[in-house]
Amino acid sequence: MCAAIADHDLVRTPANFVQLTPLSLLRRTVDVHPTRTAVRYGDITRTYAEFGDRCVRLAAALARAGIGRGDVVSILAPNTPAHLEAHFGVPMAGAVLHSINIRLDAAAIAFQLQHGNSKLLLVDEEFAPLVRKVLPLLDRRLPVVHIPDPAVAADPIGMAEYEAFIAPPAGDFQPLDPLDEWDAIALNYTSGTTGNPKGVVYHHRGAYLNAVGNTVAWSMGGHPVYLWTLPMFHCNGWCFPWTITALAGTHVCLRRVEAKAIYAALVEDKVSHFCGAPIVLNLLANAPAEMKQGVAPGVKVMTAGAAPPAPVIAAMEALGFNVTHVYGLTEVYGPCVVCDWKGEWDGLPLEERARLKARQGVRYHLQEGLAVLDPETMAPVPADGASIGEVMIRGNITMKGYLKNPAATEEAFQGGWFHSGDLAVRHPDGYIELKDRSKDIIISGGENISTIEVESVLYSHPAVLEAAVVARPDPKWGETPCAFVTLKPGATLTEEELIAFCRQNLAHFKAPRTVVFSELPKTSTGKIQKFVLRDRAKAL
Amino acid sequence: MCAAIADHDLVRTPANFVQLTPLSLLRRTVDVHPTRTAVRYGDITRTYAEFGDRCVRLAAALARAGIGRGDVVSILAPNTPAHLEAHFGVPMAGAVLHSINIRLDAAAIAFQLQHGNSKLLLVDEEFAPLVRKVLPLLDRRLPVVHIPDPAVAADPIGMAEYEAFIAPPAGDFQPLDPLDEWDAIALNYTSGTTGNPKGVVYHHRGAYLNAVGNTVAWSMGGHPVYLWTLPMFHCNGWCFPWTITALAGTHVCLRRVEAKAIYAALVEDKVSHFCGAPIVLNLLANAPAEMKQGVAPGVKVMTAGAAPPAPVIAAMEALGFNVTHVYGLTEVYGPCVVCDWKGEWDGLPLEERARLKARQGVRYHLQEGLAVLDPETMAPVPADGASIGEVMIRGNITMKGYLKNPAATEEAFQGGWFHSGDLAVRHPDGYIELKDRSKDIIISGGENISTIEVESVLYSHPAVLEAAVVARPDPKWGETPCAFVTLKPGATLTEEELIAFCRQNLAHFKAPRTVVFSELPKTSTGKIQKFVLRDRAKAL
Repeated sequence: MCAAIADHDLVRTPANFVQLTPLSLLRRTVDVHPTRTAVRYGDITRTYAEFGDRCVRLAAALARAGIGRGDVVSILAPNTPAHLEAHFGVPMAGAVLHSINIRLDAAAIAFQLQHGNSKLLLVDEEFAPLVRKVLPLLDRRLPVVHIPDPAVAADPIGMAEYEAFIAPPAGDFQPLDPLDEWDAIALNYTSGTTGNPKGVVYHHRGAYLNAVGNTVAWSMGGHPVYLWTLPMFHCNGWCFPWTITALAGTHVCLRRVEAKAIYAALVEDKVSHFCGAPIVLNLLANAPAEMKQGVAPGVKVMTAGAAPPAPVIAAMEALGFNVTHVYGLTEVYGPCVVCDWKGEWDGLPLEERARLKARQGVRYHLQEGLAVLDPETMAPVPADGASIGEVMIRGNITMKGYLKNPAATEEAFQGGWFHSGDLAVRHPDGYIELKDRSKDIIISGGENISTIEVESVLYSHPAVLEAAVVARPDPKWGETPCAFVTLKPGATLTEEELIAFCRQNLAHFKAPRTVVFSELPKTSTGKIQKFVLRDRAKAL
Repeated sequence: MCAAIADHDLVRTPANFVQLTPLSLLRRTVDVHPTRTAVRYGDITRTYAEFGDRCVRLAAALARAGIGRGDVVSILAPNTPAHLEAHFGVPMAGAVLHSINIRLDAAAIAFQLQHGNSKLLLVDEEFAPLVRKVLPLLDRRLPVVHIPDPAVAADPIGMAEYEAFIAPPAGDFQPLDPLDEWDAIALNYTSGTTGNPKGVVYHHRGAYLNAVGNTVAWSMGGHPVYLWTLPMFHCNGWCFPWTITALAGTHVCLRRVEAKAIYAALVEDKVSHFCGAPIVLNLLANAPAEMKQGVAPGVKVMTAGAAPPAPVIAAMEALGFNVTHVYGLTEVYGPCVVCDWKGEWDGLPLEERARLKARQGVRYHLQEGLAVLDPETMAPVPADGASIGEVMIRGNITMKGYLKNPAATEEAFQGGWFHSGDLAVRHPDGYIELKDRSKDIIISGGENISTIEVESVLYSHPAVLEAAVVARPDPKWGETPCAFVTLKPGATLTEEELIAFCRQNLAHFKAPRTVVFSELPKTSTGKIQKFVLRDRAKAL
């Protein structure tokens, strides 16, 4: 601090300094819009007064169960109202929310519960059988609260049933705010494709700023109706539990991501916004025509995880959807890079628009830095659309670090930037475009081959539904591109035809040498598991 | 900090912690939207690349002139491009922007320059004659930079001409970010109706959060075209220099607030947003019909300073404007309370809508607390729409304090809230409504009389253009209401008729006992100077 202005006596007081936390956003909405609909799910419709009250009662119940500041509380649930309540009720108890990927197996879940030292587990009825396998793997007794749901039926598990747990009035309990905005609010494990999953710790400051940042990056306006197609266990649903609440919007919960249920919600709940991987867009684009009736035009869709291919964009646009492409990672609270669309691009032909929209883009307004750097020298690559470097990010919407993993934290933050592990180019207009994960890039005869580039050509073939390219070891070239491809129902195509198609549209050395037609292995978030395919390619 | 999660080793690093500052918002817009129009003024049109470059060159010039961290740099200018540049260039030099009310006299300006210990003054050509009177009043030589403008003509003053001053390339100069987001970014003096003006110090954190908060509170969307009707010297233009820049919008500068120029800008520049006191709305509503041609419907107007009377709202709505009523004070960076409009109110009759819109409302999303408290006990008044208390505000969008005035700072922040000095009620729906300034309320026979309530009845009389009510000393009642009224051009009305009208629409003891027809004295921001009227009433 510099005192040239002689204001050193002007200190922080409770009147002019309050720790940033997304809990404040709920407080405002309950005060200002108590009668607006907060949550819709099956037969359930709850106002913000009711939703806020349930969150406080959850916090009070956790406190009664012995949960206090800094304790980790876990939840294993699809996108249900209880999962949403946990995003407020758990931090209101001073605790840290650990939302678990519902597609993991018992061993992976047990690892997280042990590593995070979880003190209590909320589990949706559907996953009670899975939790029965998890509990014996732990080194201690973990209190479990069972969240029942009329949509499923399983034997109850645990010490309490959710509705009974949160039923008592909060009484004297006062929701806790963080003592410091740097305090942890959430713990999210990475998928761990390259070893044990890492526990990414979020702080209140970042959650708050990203909750607000989403509204700016997506020009959201007041009272959105948000459909929960994106898993809440994925980077806390990209912070949208807090964003939608800040805007006094309606959360439309959804147990399963199915085209029929999504289209029904779009029409019946008048959904205005939803998020999802391109696979969700694919699902909607390829749904039967009769499902698509009655959707109002202009629904806003945010997609990340892979660039949406041109045919998918075209199909979504024809259906009246407005698609925004974003990019991020667990370590930066989900997306913090957006392909900020420019009005002057509207008139371009579809192929050109798709090419522009496939770029990951520029930093969010509230993220501080996005760069493509040489990880050795930390120098920026030329903005020529060709020079490849590593995507680096810095700012307040970046994790505290990895839990109990100082070496990984230090490595991730080397040189004052978060190292994403993604390789990209920067175009002359400043927009970045991913070329590959560091570990995915293929080096053939000394030349880099971007698997994303090869895949985008494969996707442009009308018979191809899905495609993934990995390196196959080669005695002469070191590595060559090997494509795994799923065809559209009823389509036929030979390996030779597809390779010829690629050679027409790519430098020859980039065209796949091998094509395997098969189903593609995927993570719970719809990402193709390239490490599985690499093993298969090695074994060919 | 609590370490139950064992994350105490996860510390702030340059990768995950960056001091909040609005300077980052300009940086992003220059990177992402370099070719968009940043500034329009007369013949001038500048892109964000140009605007950003000029701001950096201003900062470099200030550094060359010896300005460094914490130094105060003053500006005396209307809403010109240079004034906008100062909002970025001054803090980029590490300095504190002191924007001076252009309607002040030489003595008042000299007081601020002395008290703030200003190190340099930027002065618009129009105010060079005024500054010639100011300089001899100072106890030292103050460097002055003269900002010429083709729209005015005066003899240059000072050591340098603005364009020459900022002409040299920035060279090695790197814009400074605050060392701490708590560092001062601006110094704004209150109007000082009750004594010497107080120097309100803003910090980077608050300026950043309010810049973003404006976008949420007003649902602004991308690329607004903002007309500068609100003075930038007024709470840094309510932080809109930073807000509009964050959204890569266009700043349409304006030297004088005149109906013709405003309507011309609305049409020619396709203005989407502007702000102003109700007097600006009045000006627009009462302009000749031929001026009003061609304005696109849906222009958003934010108004504060007094509740817009029903006829003004009706006139603005008829012209297609969308009026948002907000409330704030210099100490809270301008408005931080908004009459958050509810869709269900749209269908109500005009009178009812005007009554609802006249309420000040609820806290901004990014302000933390708004309460109506008994200043003695700090207990909330009942939300009954009748019990009067003092408006109190807390949160991050609240000043650091008053410069060199610890007693006033301590008093203002007593009990952990900023004491606004405004009296209000809270309605059952949580919205607050101002009843008076603490010092304005009239106590007649032991009963409180809200001067705002009496004024709203006066305004509803078709012959009344403007009205203000103050206390007149009375031997029997202690005080009685005394009304000062300006009639509409051509209208006639007697004191007796107007008092009779008030008694039909108010409790009898609230009706004015005295009516004086005259012009009303106003501050530079259009507020009626009640202290002048009180003196007049005393002398009657």
